[in-house]
Amino acid sequence: MEVRDLLEQVKSGKIEITTAEQILKKLPYEDLDFAKLDHHRKLRSGFGEVVYCRGKSIEHFIKIFQSFYEKGVDILGTRASKEQFEALKAIVKEAEYDELSGVIKVVRSHPDKIGNIVVCTGGTSDIPVAEEAAQTAEFFGSTVTRIYDIGIAGIHRLLSQIERIGKANVVIAVAGMEGALPGVIAGLIDKPVIAVPTSVGYGTNFKGVSALLTMLNSCAEGIAVVNIDNGFGAAYMATQINRLAVKGNE
Amino acid sequence: MEVRDLLEQVKSGKIEITTAEQILKKLPYEDLDFAKLDHHRKLRSGFGEVVYCRGKSIEHFIKIFQSFYEKGVDILGTRASKEQFEALKAIVKEAEYDELSGVIKVVRSHPDKIGNIVVCTGGTSDIPVAEEAAQTAEFFGSTVTRIYDIGIAGIHRLLSQIERIGKANVVIAVAGMEGALPGVIAGLIDKPVIAVPTSVGYGTNFKGVSALLTMLNSCAEGIAVVNIDNGFGAAYMATQINRLAVKGNE
Amino acid sequence: MEVRDLLEQVKSGKIEITTAEQILKKLPYEDLDFAKLDHHRKLRSGFGEVVYCRGKSIEHFIKIFQSFYEKGVDILGTRASKEQFEALKAIVKEAEYDELSGVIKVVRSHPDKIGNIVVCTGGTSDIPVAEEAAQTAEFFGSTVTRIYDIGIAGIHRLLSQIERIGKANVVIAVAGMEGALPGVIAGLIDKPVIAVPTSVGYGTNFKGVSALLTMLNSCAEGIAVVNIDNGFGAAYMATQINRLAVKGNE
Amino acid sequence: MEVRDLLEQVKSGKIEITTAEQILKKLPYEDLDFAKLDHHRKLRSGFGEVVYCRGKSIEHFIKIFQSFYEKGVDILGTRASKEQFEALKAIVKEAEYDELSGVIKVVRSHPDKIGNIVVCTGGTSDIPVAEEAAQTAEFFGSTVTRIYDIGIAGIHRLLSQIERIGKANVVIAVAGMEGALPGVIAGLIDKPVIAVPTSVGYGTNFKGVSALLTMLNSCAEGIAVVNIDNGFGAAYMATQINRLAVKGNE
Amino acid sequence: MEVRDLLEQVKSGKIEITTAEQILKKLPYEDLDFAKLDHHRKLRSGFGEVVYCRGKSIEHFIKIFQSFYEKGVDILGTRASKEQFEALKAIVKEAEYDELSGVIKVVRSHPDKIGNIVVCTGGTSDIPVAEEAAQTAEFFGSTVTRIYDIGIAGIHRLLSQIERIGKANVVIAVAGMEGALPGVIAGLIDKPVIAVPTSVGYGTNFKGVSALLTMLNSCAEGIAVVNIDNGFGAAYMATQINRLAVKGNE
Amino acid sequence: MEVRDLLEQVKSGKIEITTAEQILKKLPYEDLDFAKLDHHRKLRSGFGEVVYCRGKSIEHFIKIFQSFYEKGVDILGTRASKEQFEALKAIVKEAEYDELSGVIKVVRSHPDKIGNIVVCTGGTSDIPVAEEAAQTAEFFGSTVTRIYDIGIAGIHRLLSQIERIGKANVVIAVAGMEGALPGVIAGLIDKPVIAVPTSVGYGTNFKGVSALLTMLNSCAEGIAVVNIDNGFGAAYMATQINRLAVKGNE
Amino acid sequence: MEVRDLLEQVKSGKIEITTAEQILKKLPYEDLDFAKLDHHRKLRSGFGEVVYCRGKSIEHFIKIFQSFYEKGVDILGTRASKEQFEALKAIVKEAEYDELSGVIKVVRSHPDKIGNIVVCTGGTSDIPVAEEAAQTAEFFGSTVTRIYDIGIAGIHRLLSQIERIGKANVVIAVAGMEGALPGVIAGLIDKPVIAVPTSVGYGTNFKGVSALLTMLNSCAEGIAVVNIDNGFGAAYMATQINRLAVKGNE
Amino acid sequence: MEVRDLLEQVKSGKIEITTAEQILKKLPYEDLDFAKLDHHRKLRSGFGEVVYCRGKSIEHFIKIFQSFYEKGVDILGTRASKEQFEALKAIVKEAEYDELSGVIKVVRSHPDKIGNIVVCTGGTSDIPVAEEAAQTAEFFGSTVTRIYDIGIAGIHRLLSQIERIGKANVVIAVAGMEGALPGVIAGLIDKPVIAVPTSVGYGTNFKGVSALLTMLNSCAEGIAVVNIDNGFGAAYMATQINRLAVKGNE
Repeated sequence: MEVRDLLEQVKSGKIEITTAEQILKKLPYEDLDFAKLDHHRKLRSGFGEVVYCRGKSIEHFIKIFQSFYEKGVDILGTRASKEQFEALKAIVKEAEYDELSGVIKVVRSHPDKIGNIVVCTGGTSDIPVAEEAAQTAEFFGSTVTRIYDIGIAGIHRLLSQIERIGKANVVIAVAGMEGALPGVIAGLIDKPVIAVPTSVGYGTNFKGVSALLTMLNSCAEGIAVVNIDNGFGAAYMATQINRLAVKGNE
Repeated sequence: MEVRDLLEQVKSGKIEITTAEQILKKLPYEDLDFAKLDHHRKLRSGFGEVVYCRGKSIEHFIKIFQSFYEKGVDILGTRASKEQFEALKAIVKEAEYDELSGVIKVVRSHPDKIGNIVVCTGGTSDIPVAEEAAQTAEFFGSTVTRIYDIGIAGIHRLLSQIERIGKANVVIAVAGMEGALPGVIAGLIDKPVIAVPTSVGYGTNFKGVSALLTMLNSCAEGIAVVNIDNGFGAAYMATQINRLAVKGNE
Repeated sequence: MEVRDLLEQVKSGKIEITTAEQILKKLPYEDLDFAKLDHHRKLRSGFGEVVYCRGKSIEHFIKIFQSFYEKGVDILGTRASKEQFEALKAIVKEAEYDELSGVIKVVRSHPDKIGNIVVCTGGTSDIPVAEEAAQTAEFFGSTVTRIYDIGIAGIHRLLSQIERIGKANVVIAVAGMEGALPGVIAGLIDKPVIAVPTSVGYGTNFKGVSALLTMLNSCAEGIAVVNIDNGFGAAYMATQINRLAVKGNE
Repeated sequence: MEVRDLLEQVKSGKIEITTAEQILKKLPYEDLDFAKLDHHRKLRSGFGEVVYCRGKSIEHFIKIFQSFYEKGVDILGTRASKEQFEALKAIVKEAEYDELSGVIKVVRSHPDKIGNIVVCTGGTSDIPVAEEAAQTAEFFGSTVTRIYDIGIAGIHRLLSQIERIGKANVVIAVAGMEGALPGVIAGLIDKPVIAVPTSVGYGTNFKGVSALLTMLNSCAEGIAVVNIDNGFGAAYMATQINRLAVKGNE
Repeated sequence: MEVRDLLEQVKSGKIEITTAEQILKKLPYEDLDFAKLDHHRKLRSGFGEVVYCRGKSIEHFIKIFQSFYEKGVDILGTRASKEQFEALKAIVKEAEYDELSGVIKVVRSHPDKIGNIVVCTGGTSDIPVAEEAAQTAEFFGSTVTRIYDIGIAGIHRLLSQIERIGKANVVIAVAGMEGALPGVIAGLIDKPVIAVPTSVGYGTNFKGVSALLTMLNSCAEGIAVVNIDNGFGAAYMATQINRLAVKGNE
Repeated sequence: MEVRDLLEQVKSGKIEITTAEQILKKLPYEDLDFAKLDHHRKLRSGFGEVVYCRGKSIEHFIKIFQSFYEKGVDILGTRASKEQFEALKAIVKEAEYDELSGVIKVVRSHPDKIGNIVVCTGGTSDIPVAEEAAQTAEFFGSTVTRIYDIGIAGIHRLLSQIERIGKANVVIAVAGMEGALPGVIAGLIDKPVIAVPTSVGYGTNFKGVSALLTMLNSCAEGIAVVNIDNGFGAAYMATQINRLAVKGNE
Repeated sequence: MEVRDLLEQVKSGKIEITTAEQILKKLPYEDLDFAKLDHHRKLRSGFGEVVYCRGKSIEHFIKIFQSFYEKGVDILGTRASKEQFEALKAIVKEAEYDELSGVIKVVRSHPDKIGNIVVCTGGTSDIPVAEEAAQTAEFFGSTVTRIYDIGIAGIHRLLSQIERIGKANVVIAVAGMEGALPGVIAGLIDKPVIAVPTSVGYGTNFKGVSALLTMLNSCAEGIAVVNIDNGFGAAYMATQINRLAVKGNE
Repeated sequence: MEVRDLLEQVKSGKIEITTAEQILKKLPYEDLDFAKLDHHRKLRSGFGEVVYCRGKSIEHFIKIFQSFYEKGVDILGTRASKEQFEALKAIVKEAEYDELSGVIKVVRSHPDKIGNIVVCTGGTSDIPVAEEAAQTAEFFGSTVTRIYDIGIAGIHRLLSQIERIGKANVVIAVAGMEGALPGVIAGLIDKPVIAVPTSVGYGTNFKGVSALLTMLNSCAEGIAVVNIDNGFGAAYMATQINRLAVKGNE
């Protein structure tokens, strides 16, 4: 049975909604093409559509956005160039762009934001990655508190903010160079910390590897790490945790 | 001199404002020693005492356990040798030992376990690390579901368990060699996955680095990574998430 | 004795075919220059001429193609730029170009394609490398089935195609980022899988090293690996296996 | 329906062979436990049971072998210690052991060997890995030709054997140190070469990484690589190719 | 609210002791913004303001300089582009620029330089990094002696300068390629040597890693290392040591 | 002219002490053997004799110690085994041994200790390396303040000690795992910090490389790094700085 | 005494040639500046002046060449850009340029070439590095035999040239990708082989590291390695050996 | 025709020596087994038999030595254990062993040593590798001058020996830790330097990689490098050069 058939039977009353829901959760994938499946996953997981824009041709990029746009869903684009955004803007008027992080948003639903995710950075150069995280988390429906430039070279800055940080359900700590920020935070609060190493630095920073290793070797507990510069990935997991904290396991 | 004393002296005029200002610049941590602080962190975070046993001399090891034991708290020891355990057992009768994972437990409080953390492994060789995670999570008060040996070389095994896995508040996925298990799970469920690479393998496995890289580069979202073989760290963060899911942000 | 002399003697009946064949198999190389030798190897192995175009000057590039073109053989160019192709097109009308993969083909013989090689990818960004493989395999005379974008982040997509994949004589599995696709496929079918890591990804992907390590450490058996982005090399070996499956060891 | 039930129905004529075959190919995995599934994969793929012995306790090791032994199937153990073998020998009289490679065999079926796999090495120190490959391939039913110690430091040794090597359906080339052997062979024959780097060497050999890189960067085509010291993996894939060459794609 | 205000309110009874205690727990940084804090550190440590310019937009860059300029302090900019400098020059007439090292200085105070820091290089290509160090040290008030191009390939050049080098309070030794200069100097004098590896070289230099490793493994004692190309960091520490040598621990 | 001749001429009054001193500072090395030269360097630099004991045979080890012992000088042995010490003790009664750090001392002169070097560690496992540093610095005549186990996972511990640390002329900060301690200290005080990464940790710690990278990439200034576990080297440089702070550049 | 004075005294007969020679060999370096010293080394070692051009500004580049040009000596420039050459050509008419290798020569002396250095390459892409070697060796007075594109993928090409190669006094073997050429040559001849890895290749070639490792791990003896792409360095050492073979140790 | 047949014909006068020589140089390898070929290469290259002993079983080791011993040739064994030597000594009375380097020699011919190879080391820990080099070079007939422990930490030691070093035909410079010795020597003499990195050191030495990189990046020219700890390989090439210097290209 295909998705379309199922839905028609729901519409015509031939099948109960509860039954259809059960079927959809275990939908056989055999006869589905790629787009359908992904659509299914998005609906189930409660996350809107996301497009990783880097490296996509303008033509390809527009095609994907239009396809989602026609479905009426909210769309998030990450690592988009200004050129990509301008091509999109000509077609989709409500498209918004954050040049710093390269995030594009097309938002038409406006549900209330829930919970609290703190996004903080060690320095100002880490902000583009932090913004990718913050805007992604907001797109997925979380309240975000930004606390930037509190790196450990001047530990007072961090300490003065620790109470605000401690109120979060989950913290995204973004840092390049030595990457020690997430470990210090994790030692001071009792909420999970998702560490994002950035490629900010030079020499033995090795494009973020140094920060990554610091985070993996943290003496503090309550910390886990995502790929270098992966603000999006951190926000995705933080959203899952934030939802659990607010709604429990539905 | 404590803060309160200082303020009282300011109020009573026993101390000049300028002097008090100087003193305050180097407070409030001045009068605290290490033990107090740590005790404070444990109490606040709701986690019992933990001892990393590897490399500690028997004498040193016993001293630490006795010190905690006298305080009447529960104690968890990780990566303990059999020799260490036997020395402890002679003194602390209720000490328990899991030889596979090297976990020692001294448990005197027995509150109900809460929530649900799934701990799964790719192969049977990953079980020691998984058990460190599972027993740590149980020690910290979480209900744990073990699902071992469901690696992706035979994807059927994983698929047959996916419904059970999806019921967790958070999943700890432990895998060595190619390390692809956490990514596949994250693509199939909507809960956060904490990935633990293990040093299981040989050659280009590079003692777990290969599995670590796989996990950091996962195409699926909702996944973050801890250090190689760090079952304890994964359980700590999973416990934080599990508590948020059950109790919200108290 | 040179190859040409030998062939003329075969033509004129001065030498038996069986004898000439024996001579050709052990042809003394002492008096041969480079071009001749390579010609010999191509003839013996049944593979047409191939030119690795990257980094070659237009002048050099044209010279090589003309030289082969005058011999009347089919020619494959890999990693060619558009500029190179356009210079060639001005001279060789039947030249074809695939911009995605950078493959140039000059094909004048049209024998039936044989057997079945499946080329699949984890994501859409892996397609350029996959096309280099697919077009190379077709150029060498194999039937190719393309199955793209079936990465393991959404395992349903792969599972729905596994029956088609299983019909191949040999599978070329192309994947970047975490690189787990070939291992999952190898665990599901009973044919050899040639894994091609791609440099698609960022951060700890290390330009394909992460995917490469995943493939080398695969828990599944029946899998071997080629260099990062080496679609051509994978197709070459797949063609050898496909021929063995169709024709046996002639 | 379980495999055993299905087969009984086939035997009793209640079900057609063609139908049963179809069922087996898509066997639902949902209610099966691990052992059953694996048994299924082995039957379908035509490979006997294999046990990776390294690191397994004697108790665990014996349990697994006995379990397979009772099913009456042939069993291959790789990387077994002498101690493991002796414990097994006390129970299973027909167990054989090759000390050099650590291979244990329990063989009760004796079908004719088919085709031709050449296993060759660069030096004498590579022989343990080569023997793991050779004995695995024989266990899986292939005829194996061993040609050892033909490394490129004395290229005459290799050239004198090239005709014998060229008769193979597929070549397994095992080499440590500089690892150039597989590339030279691939340049001289027209059959696929599976390259196995070994950890033989010292200093910048980096436990086989140097040989691995050489093989991945080979200028010659028709070569793919497995993990360092992975003779078993090479033999598995070689067997698949050898079967295709002899029987075609059944 | 500042500390002094708080204390005055305590004294005058406008605020309760318990309340003040609470406030103080989150002080002295609570009410300070970033600039103030840093200002505090600068004043205490005796170092002027420093701006790391690389990667900053012209707009951002000018804003920061103007902000400091208005405070009347001296300002050092490192790794500035010519474009950045020219934008600054249009506004701040006394700004100076060293194109080689990318150092910008705005100096209005002119205290006497103290002590003696020797800055030396292995080759002429290391001079940009050495100048960053030398100009930073001068900016911070140290007398600097430059001794360039005395690399160990022609050891005579170094030996002829060793007496001058030995008169320093501290030596900054800058070297790329093999990076052996600091070790040779440390073996010949009795003052601390701060080693700066540079990214000068090619191939196995690995952008300065080779020089870094040489310096970390130096057989000579009295040597410590900073990040690759980090002339600024070396000068900062050298200034601290130079001050100790001239003024003792004030 | 040899050292002995020179000294005889000084004794007999044929040469002025000032002149001899000048000559000795530039002593021609041409006719000197190794032992003489080193003796000279030690005298000039003011450091006693040091023996790196690891890997030396008992026989060789004893020979070297006896040779120094007969000269009546103080001797420091680093990384000595208990077995080496016991062999020495049988001959040299005043030899002392610190089992934790492997330091052997033979001290016969007892001048007053000068200045103040703080040696601190992140954890208790770093203490062996810290003790190598502390005992070396004491052997070389510096007053040492030990502040152990103040790692950043519980930042309060560090903050409560920062005033004591700030009184040092120079700080040796020893840390394994994430290695962030030296950077945090350098951000809080205005004295030079010598960072010593230790090989304490597991997995991605890579035997101290992670901590080393953290230290090299520190955002704070006033920090330089020595080789992994090189407590001795840190103490040597710290002693040079401590002397400069107390005595200036004599 | 300066070199000029010494030479004037030789000219005027005030000093014997033998004496002057002795003086020059141990020339005190104390009062010499850099250029003089290098001049001395060049004269003694019998090698003309060499300028590494990459990264030098046109102004700096011209200044150095003019300085040498005025001394009337032969000059070799390596890794020069076309732009650098054209600026030079405007001033120095006899300057020659090889675009492939980036070598500039200004040759005014024309002594007979001596001996025989064979320079060979694995592929055509290695020729730029090989030409740097060949032209350097010729500039230094050696006869050079070029044998290019004899890589081991088609071993016949190499074998057909082995007799010519074997006549050399020393062989420079240049290879990228797998880098096996030098090892095969060293196994076939009895003269020293200097191996030059090149950065030719992609993926796991790691910019020449793979070829470098192959050469360092060569099973054949009589081979040593220089830095990646260092044709100049190989030619320098080859010239030393070639001179020894022709003239002995003068 | 086999070698034996050829030689018998030479003996009986049936074939001219010049003709036989020609035949031997191009000896067809087709029908020869390994031992014969190697014997041929040894004879042609003028090097005696060499056995790499590490990892060989006593039984295997003895078999090889006996086989060579019966041919009456001189035999060199490298990296032999004391146990291996003692087993050999029981059979071959004239076997000699150097415990430091692990070199075994069975020498029965005693031709005059020729030329001059200097073997020098940075420290005393490098001596085992240096002795492997020195004894190998002596075994192959060269005069060897040992100059040990002249590392650059005390450059005077090296400078005092530079005249002796400069008299060599070729220098083998052995160094661990920072590995700067070969570069300094190459800058001071005009003979080729073969650099041998050793695995002496700890931490960032990475078992010799640091020293290796230093040597590959040497600013001085006239230097090439062999594998870490490969004293044998260095001696082999040095012998080739020494022979060329003494005898020219025969």
